[in-house]
Amino acid sequence: MTIGPTLMQLETVVKDRLAAADAGASYVASLAAKGRGKIAQKLGEEAVETVIAALTEDDAALTGEAADLIFHLTVLLSERGIGWDAVAAELARRHGTSGHAEKAARND
Amino acid sequence: MTIGPTLMQLETVVKDRLAAADAGASYVASLAAKGRGKIAQKLGEEAVETVIAALTEDDAALTGEAADLIFHLTVLLSERGIGWDAVAAELARRHGTSGHAEKAARND
Amino acid sequence: MTIGPTLMQLETVVKDRLAAADAGASYVASLAAKGRGKIAQKLGEEAVETVIAALTEDDAALTGEAADLIFHLTVLLSERGIGWDAVAAELARRHGTSGHAEKAARND
Amino acid sequence: MTIGPTLMQLETVVKDRLAAADAGASYVASLAAKGRGKIAQKLGEEAVETVIAALTEDDAALTGEAADLIFHLTVLLSERGIGWDAVAAELARRHGTSGHAEKAARND
Repeated sequence: MTIGPTLMQLETVVKDRLAAADAGASYVASLAAKGRGKIAQKLGEEAVETVIAALTEDDAALTGEAADLIFHLTVLLSERGIGWDAVAAELARRHGTSGHAEKAARND
Repeated sequence: MTIGPTLMQLETVVKDRLAAADAGASYVASLAAKGRGKIAQKLGEEAVETVIAALTEDDAALTGEAADLIFHLTVLLSERGIGWDAVAAELARRHGTSGHAEKAARND
Repeated sequence: MTIGPTLMQLETVVKDRLAAADAGASYVASLAAKGRGKIAQKLGEEAVETVIAALTEDDAALTGEAADLIFHLTVLLSERGIGWDAVAAELARRHGTSGHAEKAARND
Repeated sequence: MTIGPTLMQLETVVKDRLAAADAGASYVASLAAKGRGKIAQKLGEEAVETVIAALTEDDAALTGEAADLIFHLTVLLSERGIGWDAVAAELARRHGTSGHAEKAARND
């Protein structure tokens, strides 16, 4: 399993939930209904849990916290209308993971 | 540009840097040389900046903070020996972005 | 109402709760029973809420979050056996709020 | 040394610095000149360091991080025009550290 399709799939699911009329229908919609501050708060809380897991817990726990952090970052970005593609472009710009490298990785 | 190859490329770069003999040679190596606590601290700081950017800054700033957060999460996970594939598997398990969904996304 | 007696009183209450045999008897005892990581997590979460309140909420909300942050810092320090007097001494050393200044403030 | 006079003294110092015309003259003034977001960011960063110190460092380190956290909370509150007396009142309301208890503590 690779992270790319997972994140794009996650982004699609989150966007669908954010667009749903019924806030009570999903966790994402009910969180978003509480406002951007609450989404940001959850992101911050998951980061704290990731920090603590990194220092005191086992691999399964840290992996779980990282997944929660990524999930809530997806919600935060999506609610602001920002896609993972924009983050990917910024990472490529900063760390030289260029289109060429991307192509090579895709061929793996 | 998609997020998957970018993250896998980033993970490869970070692992190479972590394995480098000369700690002064790169940001990642020098950060890791200060210990896991310092990597976790940076992750926490980037999360705080992401929270603040989400609430008070424009899309470019938030995208940049998200990239920094992802970068330092890659370092934190890699230093613990955890790959993005493990996080992807956990996200799939939690949010139903399954192998089937992954395949569909890959075909987009 | 001044902060000093409040914090010393809070410290006394928290220490009593931490020393209580029955973990179910109080919030402090039940939090501490979950381990130091959970106390630290709560401190981190309250800090995130304070950051968000400072940027997006009114004075009453920010005051409430600051109170929660101070409360959980009292629990975290007490569980480690550190008193507010030690923090006061460090603040005095760093910021020149010396014994002389303290005396002057006490005479107000 | 007790925490009350220290915090009131700290609040007085911080308010003076915030009111100073020359932003370059002090750490507090130059931090405030960067905006409330930067003060909130520092508060968040000090909280992360406190969390990490609580879990992995010795008493002196944790005491130092707690002092930094208290200092930046004083700056954040003061910049918003909130005094420690308001936080004390809220703590008393929530945790029963009432005027009576305050008086008793003061007589110690």
